[in-house]
Amino acid sequence: MTRITLLGAGRSASSLIQYLLRYAPLENWQLTVADVNPAHLVPVLAAHSEYARAVSFDIQDEARLENLVAGSDIVISMLPALFHGPVARACVRLGRHLATASYVSEEIRELHAEAQQAGITLLMECGLDPGLDHMSAMAVIEHIRARGGHITSFKSYCGGLLAPDSEGDNPWKYKFTWNPRNVVLAGQSTAKYLENGRARFIPYQHLFARTEPIEVPGYGSFDGYANRDSLSYRAPYGLDDIPTILRGTLRRAGYCAAWHALVRLGLTDDSVHIGNTADLPWRELIESYLPVAVPRAASETELASQCASYLNLPLAGPEMQRLQWLELFTDRPVGLADATPAQLLERLLTDKWQLQPHDHDMIVMQHLFEFVLEGVHYHSTSSLVVLGDDATHTAMAKTVGLPLGMAVRRLARGEVRRCGVVIPTSSDLYQPILAELAADYSIRFEETENVASRNMLAS
Amino acid sequence: MTRITLLGAGRSASSLIQYLLRYAPLENWQLTVADVNPAHLVPVLAAHSEYARAVSFDIQDEARLENLVAGSDIVISMLPALFHGPVARACVRLGRHLATASYVSEEIRELHAEAQQAGITLLMECGLDPGLDHMSAMAVIEHIRARGGHITSFKSYCGGLLAPDSEGDNPWKYKFTWNPRNVVLAGQSTAKYLENGRARFIPYQHLFARTEPIEVPGYGSFDGYANRDSLSYRAPYGLDDIPTILRGTLRRAGYCAAWHALVRLGLTDDSVHIGNTADLPWRELIESYLPVAVPRAASETELASQCASYLNLPLAGPEMQRLQWLELFTDRPVGLADATPAQLLERLLTDKWQLQPHDHDMIVMQHLFEFVLEGVHYHSTSSLVVLGDDATHTAMAKTVGLPLGMAVRRLARGEVRRCGVVIPTSSDLYQPILAELAADYSIRFEETENVASRNMLAS
Repeated sequence: MTRITLLGAGRSASSLIQYLLRYAPLENWQLTVADVNPAHLVPVLAAHSEYARAVSFDIQDEARLENLVAGSDIVISMLPALFHGPVARACVRLGRHLATASYVSEEIRELHAEAQQAGITLLMECGLDPGLDHMSAMAVIEHIRARGGHITSFKSYCGGLLAPDSEGDNPWKYKFTWNPRNVVLAGQSTAKYLENGRARFIPYQHLFARTEPIEVPGYGSFDGYANRDSLSYRAPYGLDDIPTILRGTLRRAGYCAAWHALVRLGLTDDSVHIGNTADLPWRELIESYLPVAVPRAASETELASQCASYLNLPLAGPEMQRLQWLELFTDRPVGLADATPAQLLERLLTDKWQLQPHDHDMIVMQHLFEFVLEGVHYHSTSSLVVLGDDATHTAMAKTVGLPLGMAVRRLARGEVRRCGVVIPTSSDLYQPILAELAADYSIRFEETENVASRNMLAS
Repeated sequence: MTRITLLGAGRSASSLIQYLLRYAPLENWQLTVADVNPAHLVPVLAAHSEYARAVSFDIQDEARLENLVAGSDIVISMLPALFHGPVARACVRLGRHLATASYVSEEIRELHAEAQQAGITLLMECGLDPGLDHMSAMAVIEHIRARGGHITSFKSYCGGLLAPDSEGDNPWKYKFTWNPRNVVLAGQSTAKYLENGRARFIPYQHLFARTEPIEVPGYGSFDGYANRDSLSYRAPYGLDDIPTILRGTLRRAGYCAAWHALVRLGLTDDSVHIGNTADLPWRELIESYLPVAVPRAASETELASQCASYLNLPLAGPEMQRLQWLELFTDRPVGLADATPAQLLERLLTDKWQLQPHDHDMIVMQHLFEFVLEGVHYHSTSSLVVLGDDATHTAMAKTVGLPLGMAVRRLARGEVRRCGVVIPTSSDLYQPILAELAADYSIRFEETENVASRNMLAS
């Protein structure tokens, strides 16, 4: 019997719990799901009481954490990443394995030697991003290498989006399937990547204007914008000398240009409380950002027209259409007193971009490779689209939870032999997981490969 | 006898010390100058040993602080503002007066009632900015009020600059006379002010492009850019209902447009370490910010030309001239490994904008008022220019230290009757100080007043 304890059972844990319940009787697991509010788990676990129970748990309660870890063989943490430190330290101290879908933090990295000595595995970055991105990219990278190819460029984009059938009349084609605050503050520092062997930097004020168009067969056009630090992906993928590497985030085509307009207005600044009242109309807030005062009696269209001219955008164009759809030029109250512009924007978007019960989300991932094989230059892509089943088993919950559950299954079977801090970049881990995702859940990457040009010297 | 202790005797305390030494024998003061490095004070105080001594002092040593405060009647702190909390608490506890040139922080504000009960005065904001700005503005404001005028607009600018005879061939006409890091990071949040009764916001990415031209008779043209929070000046000046209020910083004309180019490039971002080597040439760093790669063999002029075209500026224009003068397009190494762009820029400017021993600095302050008096609209200005005497008695040291010394003299004489936290906005304090500055140091504001328009209804 293997005792598995899941810490944190929020919305994004739904598919993980379903997976764990599926395999618990088959693999002889005793499952404990520990959450700050375990009541909602009762109906989920009701039919599985022989091998699964829900318990209450508060991360602030150190003795309780110690107790839960001691009573487990494997701990899975779906808690917010900042809580992984104390959990990992308890696992190392008590000699228990840990699995998470979060990045290896400095705090976790420091536990590597100690975990190795204790003979346990801290299996990190096993969700979607990080997780499935590593697994699928490494599958392509090792396949190219096995054929004798040399990779010269690697770009990788991922986005949590809205399924096409749920886009409706929302011109942004976006709703929140992830932390709204992170979306509003996304990219607020200089993005770093490599292009043809040279460092490239994009400061925040240009980030959403310097995007790359991405096509996904059957799903149309997207914008990719660069993430903060693409360079850190070189080492784990064994691509230390690669001339071009970029990691980015996907939005539907047109989103980034309109978001850039919000950035230019100043609405994403989170550093200053503006001393406003909660009933301040959005139109007055926008007016305060324009360099020339607009008459108080100006109509919504007149204000939008002034704003368009300030931003040098056509009033009837796609950017201004998206801004108007947000009701930025109306008497709608901002609804929050003495807030930062970013907090006011987040509040508005939390309403405008709220996922409805009937909405489906969509995960899109695409890797773009360039490589040279026997003097021939190739382009290849590997693309994944996952649609949510419903409001519970969202694409986000599936792509975060299923790879993590599958990694835990290998760990429980003793198939993960490395100790210390491990991420799923080696084939013994990613091959069976990618195969299981494709066979049992139809989560599979579509690959294309084309000859880009023949090397004149070699031909 | 009055025992006066000065904590902190760095460069900016030179004129304050000179003032205190001048009045110590006349006013029967015993002066203690406490500094982390008192050796440099020995020659300064040598001729004054009857009434002045230097002692060593480290702010980390709580017992020593307690001791120094206990042995004083008045404590003056020229320590960095973040150390004023412990000093002020010791003063309140031991019943001693305190005087500083720093803003009233939340920490100081909280001591108000306790200081009142203890019957002591925490005399804050008695330097240049804050300090002389309050005194000179309030003198004009109360004069307009005494005549029955109603103030409708108040703008106030101040800058620590380079004297015209020291500008040389430096096209920025600027050198550091203040903390370089603060200059590089200046304005990195949304600036707030009021214009015609409406809130105005300027996000950082537009701040240095939206400046006001300021003329100072005899000293030419300046750019004024808005400070972070102009609204907080309404209450202390009794201008709660004023329709227009703006506080700003002065630079020489042309500085702000060129600084805006540095902001647009991304060189003032302090949020990301770029992983560079110390020998990275500036030209390569600049190249990394351009959206299109420049050939490695490009000349300095070719790179500057690409940069100018990216920024949409004329290559031979004043902004690019200032950027070229900084050697941004040369092989000069950045000199600092794995730094933020702002740290690299600070390092370059610390060299390029270093005050030389023969340089003179200059303080410029200008208040601009609009008011209505008997139906007539007036514009008035009050302008101050102070030139540094030499590298020790800089304009900065004089304008920070002399008002503070004069405020302490009034405090020592028992002429400051209010207890608790006090700033120099009432005439009993500012009138004698402004008079003494004018009579003894020729530090005087020049005032102009013009009729702007006659009110048609009233005429």
